[in-house]
Amino acid sequence: MHMSHRISGFQCSPIRRLSPFARVAESKGIRVYHLNIGQPDIKTPPQVLDAIHAYNEQTIAYGASEGLQELREGLPEYYKKYGLDVQPDDILITTGGSEAIQFAFMTLCDPYDEVIIPEPYYTNVASFANIAMVNLVPVTSKMEDGFVLPSIDEFEKKITRKTGAILLCSPNNPTGHVYTPRELKQLLELVKRHDIFLIVDEVYREFCYDGKTFTSILSFTDYADRVICVDSFSKRYSMCGSRRGALVCKNPEVLASALKLAQARLCPPDIEQEAAFAALRTDDSYIDQVRAEYQNRRDILVSGLRKIPGVKCNCPKGAFYLVAELPVDDAEKFATFMLRDFSLDGETVMVAPCEDFYVTKGIGRKQVRLAYVINPEALRHALRCLEAGLAAYRKQVMMEC
Amino acid sequence: MHMSHRISGFQCSPIRRLSPFARVAESKGIRVYHLNIGQPDIKTPPQVLDAIHAYNEQTIAYGASEGLQELREGLPEYYKKYGLDVQPDDILITTGGSEAIQFAFMTLCDPYDEVIIPEPYYTNVASFANIAMVNLVPVTSKMEDGFVLPSIDEFEKKITRKTGAILLCSPNNPTGHVYTPRELKQLLELVKRHDIFLIVDEVYREFCYDGKTFTSILSFTDYADRVICVDSFSKRYSMCGSRRGALVCKNPEVLASALKLAQARLCPPDIEQEAAFAALRTDDSYIDQVRAEYQNRRDILVSGLRKIPGVKCNCPKGAFYLVAELPVDDAEKFATFMLRDFSLDGETVMVAPCEDFYVTKGIGRKQVRLAYVINPEALRHALRCLEAGLAAYRKQVMMEC
Repeated sequence: MHMSHRISGFQCSPIRRLSPFARVAESKGIRVYHLNIGQPDIKTPPQVLDAIHAYNEQTIAYGASEGLQELREGLPEYYKKYGLDVQPDDILITTGGSEAIQFAFMTLCDPYDEVIIPEPYYTNVASFANIAMVNLVPVTSKMEDGFVLPSIDEFEKKITRKTGAILLCSPNNPTGHVYTPRELKQLLELVKRHDIFLIVDEVYREFCYDGKTFTSILSFTDYADRVICVDSFSKRYSMCGSRRGALVCKNPEVLASALKLAQARLCPPDIEQEAAFAALRTDDSYIDQVRAEYQNRRDILVSGLRKIPGVKCNCPKGAFYLVAELPVDDAEKFATFMLRDFSLDGETVMVAPCEDFYVTKGIGRKQVRLAYVINPEALRHALRCLEAGLAAYRKQVMMEC
Repeated sequence: MHMSHRISGFQCSPIRRLSPFARVAESKGIRVYHLNIGQPDIKTPPQVLDAIHAYNEQTIAYGASEGLQELREGLPEYYKKYGLDVQPDDILITTGGSEAIQFAFMTLCDPYDEVIIPEPYYTNVASFANIAMVNLVPVTSKMEDGFVLPSIDEFEKKITRKTGAILLCSPNNPTGHVYTPRELKQLLELVKRHDIFLIVDEVYREFCYDGKTFTSILSFTDYADRVICVDSFSKRYSMCGSRRGALVCKNPEVLASALKLAQARLCPPDIEQEAAFAALRTDDSYIDQVRAEYQNRRDILVSGLRKIPGVKCNCPKGAFYLVAELPVDDAEKFATFMLRDFSLDGETVMVAPCEDFYVTKGIGRKQVRLAYVINPEALRHALRCLEAGLAAYRKQVMMEC
């Protein structure tokens, strides 16, 4: 029996290897604080739920492949808040940012083409690359530099005849780095010079901290023809499960091509689009509160981590993740220990080893990604577990005296 | 600028070429009866809409990649009605039958591998094949034979080292043929002999007429390891826009592989899954009524068509489409004429030229696919337009005296 190479290309990620241990711990009544996943506990805006309750069709019928027209017409108002000129015709509604990235890859790349990506990167991109049969080519960003954009020369060195695009995530998952206008401009000049594309995943756009303003790739209007912006309602309105996203692109040829992929799957699910449409009416105060909440959680996590001997981390400026270096030999071994062999007053922590967030083998072995999406009280408990767990691990596993 | 070969592989279908004409006609106030698309006017069961109105989460959160557990646990009860032993672990909830077919292709086939398919076939499969970069290899079924399964030798001749699977749709879109146990068994023996897979799209399972019983591919338990069944809630419960489907497979390796594709897109949309779960509680009387309604519509369409001089069609035994041969030189030219140059008392008809439903070029040029999903009154009007339109076309365009 033959399984496709796409499938054999999927690596079993540390998170998937760890999940059974988490389930066992939970089945034994241990409370596991999930710092490993970006599932916020923030409430979805009430008018989104109201719109679902008021869903008024008698037949749930096929909609347009491009997405609900009202939603495409409503989104430009939202982008205006960021000073961006987006038209309904520039927008394709997708099933999550996930589908938008897949559409971008499949539109721009043939099998075995390449996409350059700064690492560490959002690990699911490896799966999208497998599905499109695209090879990811990494450029390493470093913790000691605050995970800023590596030198543009490093990117240029990696461009070959097979390069279809560079993919960026800003604010970044997992590093929290918010790319500066200067960094973005450098990349835009590079992609223009080499006649390739820049795909920017901006799903964490709202979550920039310390008063830092966000610069969207769509604001560089001179380069609009070679930019694809990936967007999503998931994080912005805490409605990850609705899987509403968008692909935004001012290049009509690219959008028409992506539309062919969209037409194949007929249309995005209807009810969730009504929910997303209602989300557009969300008051700015909701976003402001959520941003303040995340900033507070970030502060708790960063200051807590810095108090733990041997732990290093930057203070992220955006999104709701950070990469921390732990005083351990192997982050996956430590993560397994925390789930399988450790608990403190019936509690423990699940962390995401960073190995998966790098294309390059052997980097980031001591690093973990931590999401600060759980409430402050839970975060403090998680930090307490982490500190005690690290001490226990170093003593029991690393055999320190 | 480079667009991928996937995209250039998409052909502009007659339906897409015709749609602008339909929009123009509609904008001029002409009522267009859409026999070209399988969008039923049947109401979704009320408890589905009730479940949406009662959606009770405060945060629309990520769910399991496999799909909502209750839904996977509820579906086996439904399959039991068909005498099928399906377990929750055999099921992956997908975004439409569309995603299930894509998962099947991507799991079983590498780029440039082949899938054998009887033609005429559901035209969107060509798009799924493009996305997976799989080549469709046709075996032609014929109207004069009632579109039954072509000789198994014809299939065997097409099997090469690159063949990953045979894809069947039963009851068939567009022909309405319901494959017999004997036909299915022949195919199963063939795929077993060649160590390939049989994928069967059974989304029209409920719609078999004249008391004909349906045989699911899942009932052949001896061959379960090489079968993928594609299912959907769309047609069964008239909820196409919810895009809920399923991939059912008893081969754990295949299911684990498809799950990797599912994990990439995180989870199916949540609210629509709750809707699907409620759909499982649909009383059999709903399905019986809908089936009777479609059978009545079929009878109206078939007897109406047979009264039109020169029109040929079979009486389909299942699904809600039929393929008709029209007394015209070119079905697409005729379809365009109907939308652009014809109306009868302010009404006209949109039909789907069959060219798209064949891989082989030049077959089916006089054929159209007609969906009988609109109500009897509308169907009768559509038939009236079709008869008058055919006469006008033959006179004005084909220059008959």
